[in-house]
Amino acid sequence: MTSPRGFLEEAGEFGLIRYIAELHPDKSRGVLLGIGDDAAEISFDPEMSILAAADVIVEGIHFYREHYSPEQVGRKAVAVNLSDMAAMGGRGRFILCQTGLPPGIELEFFRRCTGGMVDYAREMDMALVGGDISATEGPLFLAVTILGEVPAGRTIRRSGASPGDLLVLSGFPGESAAGLKLLKRGDLPDNPALRHLVRSHLEIEPRVELAGLAADSGVASAGIDLSDGLTSDLLHICQASGTSAELERDSIPLSAELVEGAGFLGLDPLDLALNGGEDFELLLAVSPGAAGELVGEARKIGQKLTVIGRVAEGPPRLTMVSPGGRKILGAGGFDHFG
Amino acid sequence: MTSPRGFLEEAGEFGLIRYIAELHPDKSRGVLLGIGDDAAEISFDPEMSILAAADVIVEGIHFYREHYSPEQVGRKAVAVNLSDMAAMGGRGRFILCQTGLPPGIELEFFRRCTGGMVDYAREMDMALVGGDISATEGPLFLAVTILGEVPAGRTIRRSGASPGDLLVLSGFPGESAAGLKLLKRGDLPDNPALRHLVRSHLEIEPRVELAGLAADSGVASAGIDLSDGLTSDLLHICQASGTSAELERDSIPLSAELVEGAGFLGLDPLDLALNGGEDFELLLAVSPGAAGELVGEARKIGQKLTVIGRVAEGPPRLTMVSPGGRKILGAGGFDHFG
Repeated sequence: MTSPRGFLEEAGEFGLIRYIAELHPDKSRGVLLGIGDDAAEISFDPEMSILAAADVIVEGIHFYREHYSPEQVGRKAVAVNLSDMAAMGGRGRFILCQTGLPPGIELEFFRRCTGGMVDYAREMDMALVGGDISATEGPLFLAVTILGEVPAGRTIRRSGASPGDLLVLSGFPGESAAGLKLLKRGDLPDNPALRHLVRSHLEIEPRVELAGLAADSGVASAGIDLSDGLTSDLLHICQASGTSAELERDSIPLSAELVEGAGFLGLDPLDLALNGGEDFELLLAVSPGAAGELVGEARKIGQKLTVIGRVAEGPPRLTMVSPGGRKILGAGGFDHFG
Repeated sequence: MTSPRGFLEEAGEFGLIRYIAELHPDKSRGVLLGIGDDAAEISFDPEMSILAAADVIVEGIHFYREHYSPEQVGRKAVAVNLSDMAAMGGRGRFILCQTGLPPGIELEFFRRCTGGMVDYAREMDMALVGGDISATEGPLFLAVTILGEVPAGRTIRRSGASPGDLLVLSGFPGESAAGLKLLKRGDLPDNPALRHLVRSHLEIEPRVELAGLAADSGVASAGIDLSDGLTSDLLHICQASGTSAELERDSIPLSAELVEGAGFLGLDPLDLALNGGEDFELLLAVSPGAAGELVGEARKIGQKLTVIGRVAEGPPRLTMVSPGGRKILGAGGFDHFG
């Protein structure tokens, strides 16, 4: 409470709150009272269920400040939560953010990080409505809570998968993990594939539009976003649904960029795709009769979907099926304590 | 990501989440889906406005672990948010908590802290519905978001005070600040007054019932909870309402315990009452015709209210009125960066 904290002592908590309130004087639909009082006052449509997601990102655990621009840090804190919303079929509406600012952090960082958060909120049609700013003697953290909505009765839960459902995956898993490994290695050649992988890690794209499509159509029996890794998150669906699952090795989508990046790193691209974390792609369980139409509808909004396996009877475990045979997989996903 | 983290590595993030979900298998009204999926699914009454408050507490800034039992840390993280809810006239319903666990923290601490949070949630008729658990290399933090409700159109905002309104305060300000000073000094004699002050700091009592009374009656034109200190928080009302305010020196309620504790510390009890922080009492602006009835109704629920001054015309500033004359006050409240 007595150590020097640079601009925090100068600007003070209330000055910083005024700064954010002026940066984001939000008059969005549903914001009755935004930043600056003891609580925000918001309203949702009564025909929609309210969803609440709360993910924190901590420097040194979820990100390194030398890898990210300040704007990207602010964006990421919101995007990881928006991805949780998408995994439930929902759309984010309101953001609250509690931040811990370490000693010596500069006002310029704060401004740019907040700006990145607010710009991204606008882009995604969300409003920052409150939060808290504190000093900390430790690393920077941003604890974001997002409130969102989904049509009543349309939430996509982890627990609804049934044997026979197809497993449908958005995008290309493994790219974010490859990007993180490239960032940690550093000193990269200027190469479009490597740049793409790094960007996949730094600027995740929550699958909000796809989530809306899946929730509106009602065809997804279960879903999750890949934050821990494909195998680890698929196992979460199996555990919640009381099923097992089979992955078809040759159907796992490997991007050309991932294959090139894995080659550069001397790693197996399939291993990255199965066990890399922070993909933030959506993994959905869909009844076989409806999967084709969902894939087609997704294509219309520019979203690649791939059928990568199926839900099966049996205890929660994963089996990899390949032309050479079948084998039980361990879950090697990203664990933030690992 | 590679340093030893004791039980966190052992139990893992998912084990800890399962632990909390089993500790709190909540089937409360309004919880459609609680802990364990990507987001919680909750519902509110459509005739109620939704309130969202998000206050973080950080070790070394808002609390010292040697002062608090683990249960009290968990309780405090929720109570400070519930007090924000109360300041808006609202009642908390749902809790989300993001926690950063420092290296070497023990499972026993985690269990007891979580237990304190969950027990307090039950006591206050709230449900823990989600959150996030992360490691951090820095001090412990608990970033709690509370979602609450208030009858539509009945929120008590900071901005509604009018010249002529009376200022009504719950309880006894300054006790929490005195308690903190006693804790920092340590080596205290075993004395009921000092124990009372320490407890006032460690176990704040958000004025939830009083808030409900004020919101239902509609008589409060403005309100705030005293987190920063009486003068500082009253100035927030003045700034938001575009008014000044007068405090009557001889009406500021000083408890016998505060007077005794201030004597022990060699401090002025009035200074502690005016400028001490973390009281979490409610300060309301009420029209003169309605104040008497509110004070009477509050007495019926065992809540002491005192008229301590009035809202006045003029730029945002505070005047202290005493038999000896009038003087302009600075705002000396608690600043978490101070």
